Amino acid sequence: MVIDQLIDGIVAKRNPCIVGIDPEWERIPACFREGAATPGEAIRDWGMTVIDAVADVVAAVKPQMAFFEVFGAEGVQVHQQLVAHAHRRGLVVVDDSKRCDIGNTARAYAYAHLAKAGPINADMLTVTPFLGRDSLQPFLDVAKRDGKGLFVLVRTSNPGSGEIAEAVNGRGERLCDFLADYVREAGRDCTGRHGYASVGAVVGATWPEEAARLRQRMPGCFFLVPGYGAQGGGAADVVPCFNPDGLGTLVSSSRGVLYSWEREADFDGTRAGYARSVRRSAGEMQRQVYAALRAACPEMVY
Amino acid sequence: MVIDQLIDGIVAKRNPCIVGIDPEWERIPACFREGAATPGEAIRDWGMTVIDAVADVVAAVKPQMAFFEVFGAEGVQVHQQLVAHAHRRGLVVVDDSKRCDIGNTARAYAYAHLAKAGPINADMLTVTPFLGRDSLQPFLDVAKRDGKGLFVLVRTSNPGSGEIAEAVNGRGERLCDFLADYVREAGRDCTGRHGYASVGAVVGATWPEEAARLRQRMPGCFFLVPGYGAQGGGAADVVPCFNPDGLGTLVSSSRGVLYSWEREADFDGTRAGYARSVRRSAGEMQRQVYAALRAACPEMVY
Repeated sequence: MVIDQLIDGIVAKRNPCIVGIDPEWERIPACFREGAATPGEAIRDWGMTVIDAVADVVAAVKPQMAFFEVFGAEGVQVHQQLVAHAHRRGLVVVDDSKRCDIGNTARAYAYAHLAKAGPINADMLTVTPFLGRDSLQPFLDVAKRDGKGLFVLVRTSNPGSGEIAEAVNGRGERLCDFLADYVREAGRDCTGRHGYASVGAVVGATWPEEAARLRQRMPGCFFLVPGYGAQGGGAADVVPCFNPDGLGTLVSSSRGVLYSWEREADFDGTRAGYARSVRRSAGEMQRQVYAALRAACPEMVY
Repeated sequence: MVIDQLIDGIVAKRNPCIVGIDPEWERIPACFREGAATPGEAIRDWGMTVIDAVADVVAAVKPQMAFFEVFGAEGVQVHQQLVAHAHRRGLVVVDDSKRCDIGNTARAYAYAHLAKAGPINADMLTVTPFLGRDSLQPFLDVAKRDGKGLFVLVRTSNPGSGEIAEAVNGRGERLCDFLADYVREAGRDCTGRHGYASVGAVVGATWPEEAARLRQRMPGCFFLVPGYGAQGGGAADVVPCFNPDGLGTLVSSSRGVLYSWEREADFDGTRAGYARSVRRSAGEMQRQVYAALRAACPEMVY
């Protein structure tokens, strides 16, 4: 069960952080782009370098499908290759594709992204609940069958996220609470040996009070918290997303780790230098978040 | 501007229907699957056959990305090839990918799917508004810049669609109404010479009263109405989605057209026979919908 593998990795590496893999062409160092036969070759080499650089620092990586789709079918091919490479390095892969649809179309997405027999075979997938709970069922079915996991968008980090998530349904529940209850219930029969469910929630750290409330509402569910660093959140902001055991959240950073080289005056322009930069910024993030958790979590298990 | 090209096609072909392109492997006739070097080759030949069969019947086709992602990068390659083939045949392509994300990730999706310079270069894209209006802005920016169009999910056809869309926001508006108002306003500065905007809405025909209300609320916006036939809706059900001019809606059918051969005792098992079956069922749909509109729309312009 992937949720257990994820937690084993977090504990072993003392790190609840996850590194996003978002290939933004203009920000990838020239040493990858120059000499590559195709853009796909460049982002494959770059992505493998990132994965290798963080493989013993983090438990999981999060390739963002949008940035691969920019490169067309070749980008999607690289996405599959990077998922496979991350698996070879023992990492859990969160496929941040925010897919959504109904019926047999949702089943097709679930197969494509999550199924063990499918082309991507990611471990966990982000899904968007706009179409209602029945639209999530096909994703849940595949996740449960193959021991994979889901993160349902509940309350995202952007300014407008409350426009939908804060609306109130006919039973007087805010949608983010309604969705939190769905996530909690959906995870009941797919909970691993650490007591955490295979179904979690995307929760933005930009709303710390909200995050604390949602934490109470679904204690046995993991949160995926995006935008550490780049979106303005720091270690103190993510603490309310965690349980007292120091678990229950994956803190994600993409640009803050991937493009730290841009801020380094001594960057030497080599692939090895880039790998050091990525590894160093991933390590800094681990130290910041881990220190904040050690101070705040009375029952820290790692 | 794509919205004008779409309406020109609807008027010329007297057909507001759109054919979905959803390659479901097991339902594609054996004559495409047998002998193909790869599954991608089979679905490419199949998809081109479908496009050629309906090219002078409909104004637009709607490839559903999920069914291409099932085949991995090769499927995504075929998706791109089918978009290009549909363009060669003069068809508008609605890319039904229901993408959603925020900030630079949304920009990446918008570029990948809609930008003229991007790998897919579709004409219109379905987008999911769960993350709020700011998450739709990057899609809107690309659509307006390149003369393309969007369909924002407002009220889908599935049983659970009201769980989110019927919730009420802090200003007392139901979310489907709030989103309808957004769609109407977003389209104000990208309205074509027929008086219809480049930004429309996905509205399920399973809720005819709702559809009629939403029709009033955004008269200058096109609706994309999925699931004709397969999801239980008939010609009478889609009429409330139209304006008195017989415009304002694209009625979509996928399985009802693509897999009509399964119901035909005299299907001869050949590609030509399959093409005839697709063309015949697309033609039947046109006649049913057109007849219903002629009877119901007092100001029919075609």
